[in-house]
Amino acid sequence: MIWRGRVFSSRPGVHPGLFAIMKTELLGTSFIGFSRGADSAARSHAVNPASGEKLDPAYAAPSADEVEQAILLAEQAFPVYSALSGRERAAFLRAIATEIEAVADDIAERGPWETGLPEARMRGETARTTGQLRMFAAMLEDGSWVDARIERAQPDRQPLPKPDLRSMLRPLGPVAVFCASNFPLAFSVAGGDTASALAAGCPVVVKAHSSHPGLAEIVGGCVIRAAISSGMPEGVFSLLYGGGRDVGMVMVKHPVIQAVGFTGSRSGGMALMEAAAARPQPIPVYAEMSSVNPVVLLPAAVDERGVQIAEGLFASLTMGAGQFCTNPGLVFLPDGHGEAFLGKLRELIETAPSAVMLNHGICQAYQEATADFAATPGVTVLAHSFTKQTEERAVPMVFTVNVRRFLEDAELHGEMFGPATLIVRGSLEEIEATLPELEGQLTATLHGTPEELAAHAGIVSALERRAGRLVFNGFPTGVEVCHAMVHGGPFPSTSDGRSTSVGTMAVHRFCRAVAWQGFPQGMLPEELRDDNPLGIRRLVDGVSTC
Amino acid sequence: MIWRGRVFSSRPGVHPGLFAIMKTELLGTSFIGFSRGADSAARSHAVNPASGEKLDPAYAAPSADEVEQAILLAEQAFPVYSALSGRERAAFLRAIATEIEAVADDIAERGPWETGLPEARMRGETARTTGQLRMFAAMLEDGSWVDARIERAQPDRQPLPKPDLRSMLRPLGPVAVFCASNFPLAFSVAGGDTASALAAGCPVVVKAHSSHPGLAEIVGGCVIRAAISSGMPEGVFSLLYGGGRDVGMVMVKHPVIQAVGFTGSRSGGMALMEAAAARPQPIPVYAEMSSVNPVVLLPAAVDERGVQIAEGLFASLTMGAGQFCTNPGLVFLPDGHGEAFLGKLRELIETAPSAVMLNHGICQAYQEATADFAATPGVTVLAHSFTKQTEERAVPMVFTVNVRRFLEDAELHGEMFGPATLIVRGSLEEIEATLPELEGQLTATLHGTPEELAAHAGIVSALERRAGRLVFNGFPTGVEVCHAMVHGGPFPSTSDGRSTSVGTMAVHRFCRAVAWQGFPQGMLPEELRDDNPLGIRRLVDGVSTC
Repeated sequence: MIWRGRVFSSRPGVHPGLFAIMKTELLGTSFIGFSRGADSAARSHAVNPASGEKLDPAYAAPSADEVEQAILLAEQAFPVYSALSGRERAAFLRAIATEIEAVADDIAERGPWETGLPEARMRGETARTTGQLRMFAAMLEDGSWVDARIERAQPDRQPLPKPDLRSMLRPLGPVAVFCASNFPLAFSVAGGDTASALAAGCPVVVKAHSSHPGLAEIVGGCVIRAAISSGMPEGVFSLLYGGGRDVGMVMVKHPVIQAVGFTGSRSGGMALMEAAAARPQPIPVYAEMSSVNPVVLLPAAVDERGVQIAEGLFASLTMGAGQFCTNPGLVFLPDGHGEAFLGKLRELIETAPSAVMLNHGICQAYQEATADFAATPGVTVLAHSFTKQTEERAVPMVFTVNVRRFLEDAELHGEMFGPATLIVRGSLEEIEATLPELEGQLTATLHGTPEELAAHAGIVSALERRAGRLVFNGFPTGVEVCHAMVHGGPFPSTSDGRSTSVGTMAVHRFCRAVAWQGFPQGMLPEELRDDNPLGIRRLVDGVSTC
Repeated sequence: MIWRGRVFSSRPGVHPGLFAIMKTELLGTSFIGFSRGADSAARSHAVNPASGEKLDPAYAAPSADEVEQAILLAEQAFPVYSALSGRERAAFLRAIATEIEAVADDIAERGPWETGLPEARMRGETARTTGQLRMFAAMLEDGSWVDARIERAQPDRQPLPKPDLRSMLRPLGPVAVFCASNFPLAFSVAGGDTASALAAGCPVVVKAHSSHPGLAEIVGGCVIRAAISSGMPEGVFSLLYGGGRDVGMVMVKHPVIQAVGFTGSRSGGMALMEAAAARPQPIPVYAEMSSVNPVVLLPAAVDERGVQIAEGLFASLTMGAGQFCTNPGLVFLPDGHGEAFLGKLRELIETAPSAVMLNHGICQAYQEATADFAATPGVTVLAHSFTKQTEERAVPMVFTVNVRRFLEDAELHGEMFGPATLIVRGSLEEIEATLPELEGQLTATLHGTPEELAAHAGIVSALERRAGRLVFNGFPTGVEVCHAMVHGGPFPSTSDGRSTSVGTMAVHRFCRAVAWQGFPQGMLPEELRDDNPLGIRRLVDGVSTC
């Protein structure tokens, strides 16, 4: 069945409060190119994490044939899609953004039911998602991102003539994208991975997250409508459902797939990395996995601004029930400092509300992780929200431990995904000596006076080796989407510390440079022609030229 | 023992013809930072491939402690070396080039004994090696390569303030480099991998190739002298001997090592990839492995320029005994064309001299591969050099096969490393349909008239997907060292088709972007300060600025 646009009705009788006002009819099937997948016996429902209630419709896992078809359509689309101009791809990305805005109310309606996140977050994340799509569109329209390089021939050079040689970035091929549970829009169906892969010129096959299939369907429909209206080839985008890891593993192992984008657990990311490395042709996996995002507090800063730092840390820690990759899960506090900081933090945590988490599994994992920390010898519960502990809600917590105990116990270096943090106390010398023992991180934060920062360059350089982004006198949550963002860090925070999944540099993950030697002008990509018809910036004989 | 400069004596009595005129005394031990390794019982000699004669001195494998020490010195050097300015690193690279030029005669003297390559090649490759070092030095002096990006704060932005965010490329950490047998200088001790890693700011631990340990020692001494004279920290460079794969595997598995550069066999590269992926912290491996570099001849071109193409192909095929990664080992020729081409090629091959190969193992592998091809049903020997076949020399050969047989037999897609090529014949339609079945390649070449090129855009795009560099009406050997070179291609030609090992883009292999958020000016790297003290090109709020 061809998807021909929005249907304004909804299934009667099922969750009328939910569906009555939605423009999008939820069918519960995959998008296989421009067609919808069949219903199947293997169906699963989203679950409202606040109530445990199943949400209609049921989502049908695609058949093996449908998965194969989606991937082969992507392969067929590749030569056509990768040959489009940047402006044509930009128009597609802008059309996706427009379609998403047209169903923003549906997203705001369905999202909280599936994720436990509030409507305001849905609207904010919708804006971030459309903003990302338009950022990549603007990058394509500008055109200079391809890193065009031209070396002109020198036929008379001695001892050997120099050939005409020109290079630019070209897309890798079809890409598999896995939706994240914690960013149901900005890191999901039309999120940063999809937007950057489509910008690069790669068709995308998306695996929906089982926690928010309805949001996936709403956004998937937007991408398909945009593809049709902007004349994209069928197969430029497909969206597959399916619980468990089976469908995803088929995607990653399929010879057509040339790269993988993933945001999720360390075990999930590692499984994809292993599968990709074991292929006859290994492919890159860009997995964002886990990070505790250390925060180092220097003495004068914590003396001067202890209360303010506690307030900022508390907000960063509990935002979105602590379900951010950049959540500050580890704080280093020098001995003899921070009385006001700790007092304020305790007060804030104790009066903090508990929070619904994204799904039952995440909530359970959080409760187990915090129970493990609480039961670890040497670890003290500094503060615990006084709200009632329930199976369905996360209770904000703060632990403390001595730096020497921390060093001894690798378990304490791990992530509690949720609104909890571990404060490690010791002398400044001990803290500095501990930093090289940390695993790779997405971010590392330092609070200090400017004088302290200058006096502790060793701490800064130790943190630089372990993180993708260094934050001074701020907090790591709130990942600005821009040209200079690095949202990626040394393993295991990501599978590939050379990459970022946020910002325009994310497009580089899905490209490789190709060189043309001795080609006639007319057969070169426009980006590489002498007359520079696109007016892009290029490196011509080593000189940046526009 | 500290290396204190050149020793003008030589060991008396040993190969007097070889050593009498050499400035460099060959000691036969590793360079462990600024010290020399101890002699050991595990020693091996280079062998003159022309005569089978062992060459003095014996080269001692380092002890496990020495390997560990070299790697730990690299780790200790990293914070110091990576903090140096681009100009300081550039001075080091220029000093290496100067030191190498000072021993060019030693290289020209020792090289042919170890490699079977002529003196002229040694001198040419020496110039390429020093040229590469100076190219990276110039890149560092220019400074813009770091891709500096600045997004200025917007504290009043709604709904959220924008933080000050700045990013640039930073080095990964200590790098392991493996010398290549076929480029004893340009892809060895101070070759492209080492030069690009040092340029990036990464200390390098080099594993010498057992075929040319004397060249390695001569050049290793140059790097050490340059490091000392330009004030680099000890550990910025070490050079380890050792036969077999033991020492190399220790390097790749060592937690300090953060990336690997390798040029060699597919089995060797695959072993490194597997070891790197299986580490607790996986690291990138840049392995250049194997490529048959397909050449497609279009009808009008081969009708018009058959003899000329045969001459060019012959020269490309037999240069350096065919021991180039970019050797054209596969030629597609349309049925009903190419009589003059084939006649000329046969004539040239039949009168071509046989050639000494780099070592006995390579020569043996070549003879086995050509014997296998000759014995493959459907494969015909088109031409065979009339020079005497000996165990020590490679005889140029050309085979032909029908395109349908070629498609059936994956063995025929493999590399014969040496002066042999396989001509695949079929209709142009069959040839075009075959191209997507090829493995990833470093290069792909097309000969055609401009009209043919325009008429066969499908062939160009099929080749683009499978190669890093596309050559029109030329030949793939001769890899220009410049900004636009891509010497890397889809797997299995390289382990990572997103990378190049030649040209300035090679530096990106050893870097990752790091972002600084909210840092005071004085604590930012110079490249990211508002006043742009280095005068480099930067992307400021999305606009390229100088």
